[in-house]
Amino acid sequence: MSPQVIPHALDRLIQNLTKLPGIGKKTASRLALNILRRPAAEARELAAALNDLHSAIQLCSSCFTFSENDPCAICGDLKRDSSLICVVEQPGDLLAIEKAGNYLGHYHILHGVLAPMDGIGPNEIKITELEARLNSGVVTEVFIATSSTVPGEATANYLIDRLQSRNILVSRLACGIPMGMDIKYADRHTLARAIESRSQTR
Amino acid sequence: MSPQVIPHALDRLIQNLTKLPGIGKKTASRLALNILRRPAAEARELAAALNDLHSAIQLCSSCFTFSENDPCAICGDLKRDSSLICVVEQPGDLLAIEKAGNYLGHYHILHGVLAPMDGIGPNEIKITELEARLNSGVVTEVFIATSSTVPGEATANYLIDRLQSRNILVSRLACGIPMGMDIKYADRHTLARAIESRSQTR
Repeated sequence: MSPQVIPHALDRLIQNLTKLPGIGKKTASRLALNILRRPAAEARELAAALNDLHSAIQLCSSCFTFSENDPCAICGDLKRDSSLICVVEQPGDLLAIEKAGNYLGHYHILHGVLAPMDGIGPNEIKITELEARLNSGVVTEVFIATSSTVPGEATANYLIDRLQSRNILVSRLACGIPMGMDIKYADRHTLARAIESRSQTR
Repeated sequence: MSPQVIPHALDRLIQNLTKLPGIGKKTASRLALNILRRPAAEARELAAALNDLHSAIQLCSSCFTFSENDPCAICGDLKRDSSLICVVEQPGDLLAIEKAGNYLGHYHILHGVLAPMDGIGPNEIKITELEARLNSGVVTEVFIATSSTVPGEATANYLIDRLQSRNILVSRLACGIPMGMDIKYADRHTLARAIESRSQTR
């Protein structure tokens, strides 16, 4: 295919879209052609949203989530329990837990997980910042909600060790069978964990 | 979840991304958070590409594909065969055929398919524009490459009827088993078509 067949302006958009996670060359072409078929005003509104994004949003200086204000809406909410901190990997995990709707404490975003092979040690993620929050003496429970992946578990175990000497409760998100799932279809690691963590009914 | 938990600027980007085809609320959130985690320069470059898109690109006045120039690179290419026109539904189909690499004629983009239930009749897609090109007398073959979907086939059949009175060859894209596919896995409609269109080997 001769290179001019794809107009330069279209190709530029396709190249930029392929930088996004999970968007390959084919999906990027489909998205770009769709944007082109629709009114220019829609493309300009998306562009404006992209342009404003980084300037409007900063990190909350307490929990390090993305926020337009400092402190963020959660850290600044007096109705939430500041004695309980939920530790997550990324701001997206905070949003997922907020959606669940039954957590009323504060958060702490690590902005990553331990990955020694990639040079990400304890100083590369926000662990000392978590300890600084604990030093204030307000916090009575740290609830670790990292992913149940290998690096997520390793980070959780490292945190548990590191917080051991403090007089605070350390809890973890429960692992088990997803709601509504037929146990036939659960993978054996999840099932093993669900059996191990079985709860007494009475 | 209280509405302020998602910063307004982030939510605005998510809302804009969900307007794209195949991007749901979850994917949009994931993309937006990823864009936010990466340098602001990347978001601005994507925004600039979006802003320039519609102003840089127009429709070729001959084949109606998206192009920065009029005529487009293909219609203006003297090495291509102007006696052969391939009729496709959308500019993306042209790109797919160009990628195949063995078609050297011109194109005609219908910008849609017949869909009477949605009020799209022959006058809503670029059929009279195709006839105007045929009136010049240069074209000897119209090669119909609409999709093998119900509306694509209906559009192809309508075109075949409408071009019948003209002294030109009308051909269609072959339907059959995809290359490399085990026939066990082909659906029965495709297999029936492949049997019907079987070719003699000698």
